[in-house]
Amino acid sequence: MIERYSLSPMKELWTEEAKYRRWLQVELAVAEAQAELGYIPAEAAQAITAKARLNVARAKEIESQIGHDLLAFVRSLEESVGPEGRYIHRGLTSYDVEDTALGLALKEALAILIGEAKRLTEILKRRAIEHKRTLMAGRTHGMHAEPITFGLKVLIWYEEICRNLQRLQTAQVLISLGKVSGSVGTYAHVDPEVERRVCARLGLAPAPISNQILQRDLHAQVLTTLAICAGTVEKIATEIRNLHRTEIAEVREGCPHGSSSMPHKQNPSTCETLTGLARIVRVNALAALENQTIWHEQDLTRSSVERVIIPDSFLATHYLLVKLAGVVEHLIVNANRMRQNLELSRGTVFSQAVLLKLIDNGMARTQAHELISGLAGRAMTEQKNFKTLVGAHPDIQKLLSPREIDELFDYEYHLKHVETIFARFQ
Amino acid sequence: MIERYSLSPMKELWTEEAKYRRWLQVELAVAEAQAELGYIPAEAAQAITAKARLNVARAKEIESQIGHDLLAFVRSLEESVGPEGRYIHRGLTSYDVEDTALGLALKEALAILIGEAKRLTEILKRRAIEHKRTLMAGRTHGMHAEPITFGLKVLIWYEEICRNLQRLQTAQVLISLGKVSGSVGTYAHVDPEVERRVCARLGLAPAPISNQILQRDLHAQVLTTLAICAGTVEKIATEIRNLHRTEIAEVREGCPHGSSSMPHKQNPSTCETLTGLARIVRVNALAALENQTIWHEQDLTRSSVERVIIPDSFLATHYLLVKLAGVVEHLIVNANRMRQNLELSRGTVFSQAVLLKLIDNGMARTQAHELISGLAGRAMTEQKNFKTLVGAHPDIQKLLSPREIDELFDYEYHLKHVETIFARFQ
Amino acid sequence: MIERYSLSPMKELWTEEAKYRRWLQVELAVAEAQAELGYIPAEAAQAITAKARLNVARAKEIESQIGHDLLAFVRSLEESVGPEGRYIHRGLTSYDVEDTALGLALKEALAILIGEAKRLTEILKRRAIEHKRTLMAGRTHGMHAEPITFGLKVLIWYEEICRNLQRLQTAQVLISLGKVSGSVGTYAHVDPEVERRVCARLGLAPAPISNQILQRDLHAQVLTTLAICAGTVEKIATEIRNLHRTEIAEVREGCPHGSSSMPHKQNPSTCETLTGLARIVRVNALAALENQTIWHEQDLTRSSVERVIIPDSFLATHYLLVKLAGVVEHLIVNANRMRQNLELSRGTVFSQAVLLKLIDNGMARTQAHELISGLAGRAMTEQKNFKTLVGAHPDIQKLLSPREIDELFDYEYHLKHVETIFARFQ
Amino acid sequence: MIERYSLSPMKELWTEEAKYRRWLQVELAVAEAQAELGYIPAEAAQAITAKARLNVARAKEIESQIGHDLLAFVRSLEESVGPEGRYIHRGLTSYDVEDTALGLALKEALAILIGEAKRLTEILKRRAIEHKRTLMAGRTHGMHAEPITFGLKVLIWYEEICRNLQRLQTAQVLISLGKVSGSVGTYAHVDPEVERRVCARLGLAPAPISNQILQRDLHAQVLTTLAICAGTVEKIATEIRNLHRTEIAEVREGCPHGSSSMPHKQNPSTCETLTGLARIVRVNALAALENQTIWHEQDLTRSSVERVIIPDSFLATHYLLVKLAGVVEHLIVNANRMRQNLELSRGTVFSQAVLLKLIDNGMARTQAHELISGLAGRAMTEQKNFKTLVGAHPDIQKLLSPREIDELFDYEYHLKHVETIFARFQ
Repeated sequence: MIERYSLSPMKELWTEEAKYRRWLQVELAVAEAQAELGYIPAEAAQAITAKARLNVARAKEIESQIGHDLLAFVRSLEESVGPEGRYIHRGLTSYDVEDTALGLALKEALAILIGEAKRLTEILKRRAIEHKRTLMAGRTHGMHAEPITFGLKVLIWYEEICRNLQRLQTAQVLISLGKVSGSVGTYAHVDPEVERRVCARLGLAPAPISNQILQRDLHAQVLTTLAICAGTVEKIATEIRNLHRTEIAEVREGCPHGSSSMPHKQNPSTCETLTGLARIVRVNALAALENQTIWHEQDLTRSSVERVIIPDSFLATHYLLVKLAGVVEHLIVNANRMRQNLELSRGTVFSQAVLLKLIDNGMARTQAHELISGLAGRAMTEQKNFKTLVGAHPDIQKLLSPREIDELFDYEYHLKHVETIFARFQ
Repeated sequence: MIERYSLSPMKELWTEEAKYRRWLQVELAVAEAQAELGYIPAEAAQAITAKARLNVARAKEIESQIGHDLLAFVRSLEESVGPEGRYIHRGLTSYDVEDTALGLALKEALAILIGEAKRLTEILKRRAIEHKRTLMAGRTHGMHAEPITFGLKVLIWYEEICRNLQRLQTAQVLISLGKVSGSVGTYAHVDPEVERRVCARLGLAPAPISNQILQRDLHAQVLTTLAICAGTVEKIATEIRNLHRTEIAEVREGCPHGSSSMPHKQNPSTCETLTGLARIVRVNALAALENQTIWHEQDLTRSSVERVIIPDSFLATHYLLVKLAGVVEHLIVNANRMRQNLELSRGTVFSQAVLLKLIDNGMARTQAHELISGLAGRAMTEQKNFKTLVGAHPDIQKLLSPREIDELFDYEYHLKHVETIFARFQ
Repeated sequence: MIERYSLSPMKELWTEEAKYRRWLQVELAVAEAQAELGYIPAEAAQAITAKARLNVARAKEIESQIGHDLLAFVRSLEESVGPEGRYIHRGLTSYDVEDTALGLALKEALAILIGEAKRLTEILKRRAIEHKRTLMAGRTHGMHAEPITFGLKVLIWYEEICRNLQRLQTAQVLISLGKVSGSVGTYAHVDPEVERRVCARLGLAPAPISNQILQRDLHAQVLTTLAICAGTVEKIATEIRNLHRTEIAEVREGCPHGSSSMPHKQNPSTCETLTGLARIVRVNALAALENQTIWHEQDLTRSSVERVIIPDSFLATHYLLVKLAGVVEHLIVNANRMRQNLELSRGTVFSQAVLLKLIDNGMARTQAHELISGLAGRAMTEQKNFKTLVGAHPDIQKLLSPREIDELFDYEYHLKHVETIFARFQ
Repeated sequence: MIERYSLSPMKELWTEEAKYRRWLQVELAVAEAQAELGYIPAEAAQAITAKARLNVARAKEIESQIGHDLLAFVRSLEESVGPEGRYIHRGLTSYDVEDTALGLALKEALAILIGEAKRLTEILKRRAIEHKRTLMAGRTHGMHAEPITFGLKVLIWYEEICRNLQRLQTAQVLISLGKVSGSVGTYAHVDPEVERRVCARLGLAPAPISNQILQRDLHAQVLTTLAICAGTVEKIATEIRNLHRTEIAEVREGCPHGSSSMPHKQNPSTCETLTGLARIVRVNALAALENQTIWHEQDLTRSSVERVIIPDSFLATHYLLVKLAGVVEHLIVNANRMRQNLELSRGTVFSQAVLLKLIDNGMARTQAHELISGLAGRAMTEQKNFKTLVGAHPDIQKLLSPREIDELFDYEYHLKHVETIFARFQ
């Protein structure tokens, strides 16, 4: 992922050096477990633990000669340890180290996302409560429908992020996994007990079965989980962009960017960026799904893909959550404008209430629908008040008293269950 | 989905008529709940329950006039009920019915998939146990690596399908959801208690919050779950295609299709078809992820997509699971050929065992790697037996006794933990 | 594709019967060519031409026994012809017929789309000219930028559809291709001259080289072309949805659908549907790209995919073009509202003109940007006229005369090159 | 794109510095054109040309204050020029520079790919001719079908890469495009003649119409073109992986990587890597297709996506073409093994030839198909020679003479049109 969209601490997690550090962590855990079980001399394990030094430059140098990054890393470790170095990586295949180390990375990366998602839920909840009764137009198909509150809108976001939080937690449990089962998963050269101890030491579960690698449905679930999170962020960002536009102007990004040429512009630039980045996370998930198919006990087709998409998707999702939290926290909400906009539709947002009351009082649904539909149309095209038109219509006068009409044209009618809904999230 | 890939009972679930039947189910549940709570007369609910008749032709006819399928359906119901018909759909918005009915459909569709996935796990487990000790070449990068058993290979498939079974169950719980909260989710014209009762009656949970619709992260999770399942099927089908090829010939589809022009062909056609269909499920998941973004309280962009991809993905996934179960059940496994193929690599599958023993006995890793690598290369290019070359090499003779060499070139060396692995799945 | 989104004549092109009819067309062309070249008796070809009858039911019946649709079709033909029937399909492989027939179908399907795209360009051009000088706000980031005309907006759509028209034409030339080269492309049992004559007779070019099939980069190009077209339609539909919303109300779908519950709604439903369907065409293109990889001289993985995505993508793209043409043709354009909206931003749309003039007259860019940016902000927050603020500012008064200011705040300033742009498309 | 898959000279094209250099190139061209036309003083243009210095560090510093990369760049230029600096970027919007500079980058990036694709076609053609008559099994569904030559297989690759070469050239013409039309495409503050001169100077065509940006169907075509190329590379790489496997062993990557644990392994690692990278190019194309939809005259959603996917897709495609050329050039072809494998199927590859001759000589197709199919099955299961079985069958003896049978079981029968096919590509 390019620097521009890479934020700490996620950024540090995906450097080459961090990867080598995790590899070292796995190799040390293996050496210790093998020593405990008597597969290598205890002094060898002590020497390895004491002397093994990460030397990325040297590992890269060896890699340039032999064309294999993990093997080069092991050789560089051996060099740093001396003779006992030959007990490093004993009986292992590269992916015993790589996939276990990836398990460590994913567990930690998901922990970071979980932290950010939690922070976001708190901000969303706070702002939802703040605007619990801030009236605004509910819109469907881009058109005014019936009144809602801005708090309800934010509460829906909150609920969806909570669901994503659970998905992230599920994915973390799933992928906190290691494997030390050898080239084809038979433990031919390494005792299953080594795997158990290594994983325990690293805070991972051992895969109940593996071939050279962990099966990639696991990673596909992680990346589709990120894609669903990204989709939620895109949805919220799109909503803010929509409410931000000149003609609506109900919200404004607190720290908006301007335009290089047009000094009057205050753009929802962060939300636009988030919308774009979500696409990357989404299409990467597709590549992760393609990665599930591997020939026999392992092939390398998924390797090049994962080197790119796993860091990219985590960095992008991290950026999405962090930046959205900032946007929501600092979002400037214009309650007056919300109220003004709501009145743009000249009372027609109450049309369903009138319709229902007419039906309840005996008018046939089809007749009522046509009548109200006609009056609503007139209100808009003739720029008249819908309530006035309703009150003046003889067929309606027969069925509804003026007081009943007043009750129908009352925003309170639409807010009566807001507390009930909020109460579900306490 | 085209007829060719549509199997019962999944097929019947996604007909237009089945959809209308579910709509009716929801409307009746609503009428009954409203009557219980006094929102409509008890007699109206009784009349509706007694007289409402599904008339698809009539609904279609009305739809062709008014261009709205749910509204047309409601009018056709009203006609069948008579005057009390006006209490049908009281205070509802179309999506109170559509999304709740979709919840019913998805719950049932997932139940069908869960049933098939279970059946598949049973078949896989049975065949894994059957071939627990059927030796074959483990292959990485398409090349022989070390020995495994066919049972281990199938056990990995079993474990992955078990994980998919859990994903399907999780998705089912998630999506067994209804909503009866009105046009913008405020319950303005319908009591939240109606929603609670309707959902309870239908075996669904009420959404804790909704706008006009259920949020689409839910459906995205369902469709990405199907895509992960499809990916697993593709992986297994690809493996069978690979083992099926003329030069490997270790397995054969029990009921293969021949060729129109070449009478000698016995093709793994079912597995090829499954591989292809998995792509459709996968790309549909992407469309489901795009569907998450909806403007304001609802727009219709996801509607046309869902009409196509939801039935298609469920039908295709159903076909994948059913047909794969058939393939695995009837798969002809040629254990002799597996053994012959294993010996194609002239004993080099034991090279890592020799390598490790040399290192254990004191040779430096790099030296050992080069030595063994060279002998393995000679075995292949000069078509000599690797064990003979190993036994004849003076540097090796210094470190390994003939008996040690015999122990290394023993398939049992590779099978020693097979029981341990299988024991984890009892 | 479901009935709802399948329009004539595209619909008729993708029925099973139409496919069989094309197969028959190919088989007849082959028989005739083989007779001309003496590979089969002339009388046999005459008998085949005279007697071969399509009998879909019988072909299906045979298919249910032998599990191969093309082979079953050939047998049903043979039955209809009698003894000379054995000369049908002589020396061919199924895909000589299937891929050549698919070439016919794609050529025709593209012809239909080309026709619709042309019709759409005409409508777009007409409406662009009609609104050449209909002033409206140009918007970037959803915010007012500078004035444009609605005609310019539509002209951009026109230009893009013209480009898609070319893409469709390129794709048609590319895919008007047949192959009659046998099981693996060696013409072992069929003379290359047969291929040449068959293709000539059918209006296709013969593939210069093939294996069992035509290479799938060809079909991938066709489907990515449809996806690009769909993307253009989605873009236009999204723009109309945006301009349609209650607060903007600059355009309206001529035949909008209403709401079942809210009688006052007039929704841009067609544009919403188009936006959704574009997703299906887009993700199908991805499956077509995956289809490029085929093992050896043919495998069947792409077959199941193509049976679904090719008809679906063509039907959806056809629907997109036809319906968009209708929407654009009947689009109700509210020029008054466009003018009113333009004035919502209180003259700040002229800010860049003022900025530039200040710089031209000697103010430093950064100073000018800050000055104008500040005045524009005040205009919006204090609801004052931007021109008044500009005219009243002492630093500006030093550099700009009142007349110069008048010239800058003139819409004509922004329209001066409209004719030039339109002239490029005559 | 990560360093590992970034090769020169493509790598240098996508650095930040290279981007700034192109921006400078555009700004200078604009200043010169504006001076020629009298919009800025000639001395200003001279000063700008003489003094404008790229200072990435300073631009970054300003960007960190104002949050806008292009604007920061312009200010850094102004600083380097002094007072006349205020004439830089006069009347432009950021995207006049960014999109025109992107046109320059894409033109050059495509030139690099075109060069590599040409080189690849030459290698492919050379190797195709080299193996024009190297017999091998043609395979369909992974099973032996009929004989082909390795040269024919490579010639198909050649033809497909030629087609991709054309696609790249078409894309280059398409995207060699600039725009200098201002914030919303009206040329309000910049003469269309400036655009014409700037584009001419830069070797680009001016867009006939634009809004703030070039329309993204253009870029979508570029990225789908890369995806189709990547698909072709994936197909070839997959074929090599298939032919490389232990049991087939017909080809070998010339410089294969070994295994860290298994010294005997010689893996097709490059081809595996290519297969994986193709996925990234493919899914990025999807993001490019999503980028087509932009709100109004511009939004920034596509910006973040393009910053990532455009360099990544070009770098990956470059890597694919370069590395595939190396693989094909150095591919070790084992003609003996090809011949041996061909004989694995015991002569059944001639079954269609026998079938056809029987039909020609009067046997009914269905009877002939069943007869030959049975004999082919016996040949494989009983490990007998198919020709012997054919020659010994009484029904066949009635219709075919021994000499006729000899002619049918002759590889020459299958090679007779090879020259004809090759002749088409001279």
